[in-house]
Amino acid sequence: MSEFRKDPISQRWVIFSGGEKKPEEYSYSMAEINSDSENCPFCEKNRHMIETEIASKSVNGRWAARIVNNKFPALIENINIEKYADGIYDQMTGYGYHEVIIDSHDHNIPFHELSQIEIEAVIELFLERFKTFRRDKTLKYVLFFKNFGAPAGASLSHSHSQLVATPVVPKIVMEELNSAKKYFNYKERCIFCDLINQEFIDEKRIITSNDSFIAIVPYAPRFPFESWILPKIHESSFGDISSYEISNLASVLKDVLNRLETVFPKLPYNFVIHTAPFENHCKDYYHWHIEIMPRLTKVAGFEWGSGFYITETSPEHAASYLK
Amino acid sequence: MSEFRKDPISQRWVIFSGGEKKPEEYSYSMAEINSDSENCPFCEKNRHMIETEIASKSVNGRWAARIVNNKFPALIENINIEKYADGIYDQMTGYGYHEVIIDSHDHNIPFHELSQIEIEAVIELFLERFKTFRRDKTLKYVLFFKNFGAPAGASLSHSHSQLVATPVVPKIVMEELNSAKKYFNYKERCIFCDLINQEFIDEKRIITSNDSFIAIVPYAPRFPFESWILPKIHESSFGDISSYEISNLASVLKDVLNRLETVFPKLPYNFVIHTAPFENHCKDYYHWHIEIMPRLTKVAGFEWGSGFYITETSPEHAASYLK
Repeated sequence: MSEFRKDPISQRWVIFSGGEKKPEEYSYSMAEINSDSENCPFCEKNRHMIETEIASKSVNGRWAARIVNNKFPALIENINIEKYADGIYDQMTGYGYHEVIIDSHDHNIPFHELSQIEIEAVIELFLERFKTFRRDKTLKYVLFFKNFGAPAGASLSHSHSQLVATPVVPKIVMEELNSAKKYFNYKERCIFCDLINQEFIDEKRIITSNDSFIAIVPYAPRFPFESWILPKIHESSFGDISSYEISNLASVLKDVLNRLETVFPKLPYNFVIHTAPFENHCKDYYHWHIEIMPRLTKVAGFEWGSGFYITETSPEHAASYLK
Repeated sequence: MSEFRKDPISQRWVIFSGGEKKPEEYSYSMAEINSDSENCPFCEKNRHMIETEIASKSVNGRWAARIVNNKFPALIENINIEKYADGIYDQMTGYGYHEVIIDSHDHNIPFHELSQIEIEAVIELFLERFKTFRRDKTLKYVLFFKNFGAPAGASLSHSHSQLVATPVVPKIVMEELNSAKKYFNYKERCIFCDLINQEFIDEKRIITSNDSFIAIVPYAPRFPFESWILPKIHESSFGDISSYEISNLASVLKDVLNRLETVFPKLPYNFVIHTAPFENHCKDYYHWHIEIMPRLTKVAGFEWGSGFYITETSPEHAASYLK
């Protein structure tokens, strides 16, 4: 039976078309691990191909994760922000940071197969860059994200993540902030905290949880088998994460990605971290989280034109496979 | 030189990364025309495969375009709308219409190669369904769209369009309405009319125009070579289009799609019609239009997570190829 469901954060209606499509009924392009490391700029032997190392973390005496400049940055670091009118339009210089986090020295290991301590090293680098950018008054936001597999937009197969720091808050984050603020004004409660409570009551969309985090399939996902990871207690900013939480985050992230991989071998996916902007006016009502978006389906005219999304597997059914 | 540009309608910042990527530098999956018509449900010889014909148009004594039910509809026609709370969440029965417009009796001819009069027949069917749905007080909107080519989400190669009629206004349309309303409250002018005037002043983003329509590459596109078609005079609803305008729309739509095809052979694309909702409270400030989205690039984590879009070819450069 077909139904509309509304995501309370984005206010987006999605359509669940009924029918409960099973994992084996999805045909998707797999993420191929390219074993040819000869010209891979992220491999140790090609270290000369990367001009700058911004930061790195070692595990057991060997580098585990490194941050480097993006060779083809979308934004430019050392320019002044100038804002001007172009007729009726608005323009601004393309100031910002676009960096790459090489997740591992190993060319062939996908992110979810890294050890927990190696994933912690990646998260620690995220946090280090977050704190550095937060001190810079010209920047408002940093988005951490990963594209895994060519079908998810990755141009190199050696495991890596990216960050983009911008002088404006991204539109989707702004929408979440506005929506969470309205909810708070009405109820004096964080909408994400209410959502987490609801998920613990309903149980059927929970994938897993640990001391610090809960992983769920959201009630009204854009993509089939979409998964979110949220801190169980109210925290608006990723930048305030503790060492204990980093350890628990690495554990739950690895766990969820492995569950997805088990159901969908070589699944291409994207994940993003949504956090409060640096100037955090939303401590009471925003709640940082990770959104994992499996690339099982093609987004087409209906979705691009309407903002509706159609899913053929209900979140409850998806969670039952990931549980 | 990298720059941020803001789309005045959606309020979306996009990033033009500089560099002016040329058409031949894009590698994209082509839309393949599948010549095997044996099991094509849209072909005349397989008419028995389609249960219902809702409407049709003939050209030169032969059917040119037919509307039929979608075999796998996302929404269901004959149910009551029921709205209920599911814990903190909102749900609604999946009421609505999901139909397919078969654009031609010819299995092998892509849409842009249809004659002008055949494209007019498709638009006339759109209009017929628009007027029927508008009379139905349970519906608020109908979205017409086309997916051309498997990479753009088309599951059958025989040229076809789709419509989805819904009891809610789509989020993206609602955003455009809200934004246009704010602009009107501030300036007492339609933002789209101002945009068209600006385009006629700047000239450099105009692809073509005729008596009734202008085609442009928008100032801050989501996709490289994105193209919009807008009525030159203020018209809020597609439903009020005249016969003369239908003829001019068929002509400009065919023209723009042919220009895109010339620059990018077998380009997969989506197009959507954005119009005022049926209950048209926005006569003064909304302006219907068509958005054509070429599928040259992959949308990845950054775009999904931020709502920013990065384009590597400026609209001015794109328009210079399409002119």
